[in-house]
Amino acid sequence: MKKKRIRIDGEQSRAKILTAAVRLATIDGIERLSLARIAAETGMSKSGVFGLFGSKEGLQLATVEAAREIFIAEVITPALERKGGRDQLLALCEGFLDYIARRQWPEGCFFASVAAEIGAGDGPLRDRVAEGQKEWVGLLAHNADRAIDNEEFHADSDPDQIALELSTMLTGIDIAYLLHRDGELLERVRRIVRARLG
Amino acid sequence: MKKKRIRIDGEQSRAKILTAAVRLATIDGIERLSLARIAAETGMSKSGVFGLFGSKEGLQLATVEAAREIFIAEVITPALERKGGRDQLLALCEGFLDYIARRQWPEGCFFASVAAEIGAGDGPLRDRVAEGQKEWVGLLAHNADRAIDNEEFHADSDPDQIALELSTMLTGIDIAYLLHRDGELLERVRRIVRARLG
Repeated sequence: MKKKRIRIDGEQSRAKILTAAVRLATIDGIERLSLARIAAETGMSKSGVFGLFGSKEGLQLATVEAAREIFIAEVITPALERKGGRDQLLALCEGFLDYIARRQWPEGCFFASVAAEIGAGDGPLRDRVAEGQKEWVGLLAHNADRAIDNEEFHADSDPDQIALELSTMLTGIDIAYLLHRDGELLERVRRIVRARLG
Repeated sequence: MKKKRIRIDGEQSRAKILTAAVRLATIDGIERLSLARIAAETGMSKSGVFGLFGSKEGLQLATVEAAREIFIAEVITPALERKGGRDQLLALCEGFLDYIARRQWPEGCFFASVAAEIGAGDGPLRDRVAEGQKEWVGLLAHNADRAIDNEEFHADSDPDQIALELSTMLTGIDIAYLLHRDGELLERVRRIVRARLG
């Protein structure tokens, strides 16, 4: 019984730390995320944080995974309820716009922010962020492909081209919205996306 | 004679410092730009740097202006040689893509990077970056408007919508290219822009 209790507490601490870490990384940058900083932020001991993540890089990689899980829960899972193809593609794009409009993360999208920060560097952290971005664009392309199969898009459409167009526009609007805080910008992009997807 | 010499040296030091500052701000973030850091980087005395910029904020604001001048020289001025309207709009977008392809700044576009970093904050620095971004989108919209006057675009096109679509896509590709370092991505966006502008 005791062991189980400790494990549950460990999981709860881990979740609490990672929620704080995702926020801190988006605001201050993932490179400034350290075991000491997160210990101070969450009121845990530095050795406790060390026990959970082992190193600064371990903490950073776990933070990217946590951000990925939030993004899946907030944007991807709801869209997966829609039929694959045009509908799901639209739901993914609109889900992303709703997500930044909610400003649950006032500092915008974790991935855009961290990519801008560490994109020029090297190492497993950068690779993981690049991989996550690729998965997202891949999901958009997969749906564009299905939309062609469903005859919702022209047969000569290029799914990768559509996915790139949509994904870059969404990253761009995340940053523009961060700067201008004008909800009308999000509505404009929503109209562009709808027009683009017919 | 002596006074003039000192002034020229001051201007040269200022230019040298600001080039280093633009690069440092893009790599490490503009918030980490300090008088001490830039003094160490350029081999100048901290009091010399203080004499030129007065404060950390003075240095940061001068850095944004220097980045703006580089962007104008590299992207905007060459495009202004083209006829206002569709041609100039295309030249601005392609100029931006060429600019990030040259990787003169391997860490990507200063403005995208700094916007992602400080967009959620407040203050004159953020306001200046937001203003710079607005000028860029305004120049795109102005050309979309002229393209309508020239009958190069449909009369019912929305210039602001076109400018938003192009500007967000360019910011997004800057970040995607930073992560994936794949020149084919830039060529794909070039094709999307050309198709979009007819």
